[in-house]
Amino acid sequence: MSKVNIAEKFSLFKSYWDPKIVGELNNQYVKLAKLKGEFVWHNHEDEDEFFMVVKGKLTIKLREGDIELNAGEFYIIPKGVDHMPVAETEVHVLMFEPKSTVNTGNIDSDKTIDTLEKI
Amino acid sequence: MSKVNIAEKFSLFKSYWDPKIVGELNNQYVKLAKLKGEFVWHNHEDEDEFFMVVKGKLTIKLREGDIELNAGEFYIIPKGVDHMPVAETEVHVLMFEPKSTVNTGNIDSDKTIDTLEKI
Repeated sequence: MSKVNIAEKFSLFKSYWDPKIVGELNNQYVKLAKLKGEFVWHNHEDEDEFFMVVKGKLTIKLREGDIELNAGEFYIIPKGVDHMPVAETEVHVLMFEPKSTVNTGNIDSDKTIDTLEKI
Repeated sequence: MSKVNIAEKFSLFKSYWDPKIVGELNNQYVKLAKLKGEFVWHNHEDEDEFFMVVKGKLTIKLREGDIELNAGEFYIIPKGVDHMPVAETEVHVLMFEPKSTVNTGNIDSDKTIDTLEKI
């Protein structure tokens, strides 16, 4: 593989809630996504999920309260924990999660994406 | 867990080649390390290794050439591939790798650290 410049990869797409695969290791994917607006409440039964904010501000709603992430901050959502990402304005995030992870977890939604693009 | 501010975690230690665990998910660790100088040539037989530069400039020497990483860039070193990180000046890196990964891989060195600190 070549090295990956994260900002350059973000310049290649504009769609929201449409994670792109930018790396693969140890049966996990590294993904980049642009988020804006509200997602859907969901959880991942068997997968922990790493969210790092690269640009902007992300709210991760949990049943017990909100997590506010600014650029340079990350949060790991444990398997089975209900969550809903919310971005008032555009946010760029880097995710690290098992290859099996579906974006909407246990919920079948019009936001569900079964096959992710590699960029 | 709480959210993690990466810069804040880096302010908690000064040692080089001494990765700190800052997160755990799916049998993988998220680690932060400060690097300066030359490491040792080594490989990880069963583990791919993700290096993202947060600050500074890192050279990853491979047998077939060098990879130069600036802030905001990452590289995944596949299992079994010999590599040696080199940092002319202090570099801050974020790593993803299996919990089983030892920093010096297949080499027993005075730089080997068997038990990493969680911060």
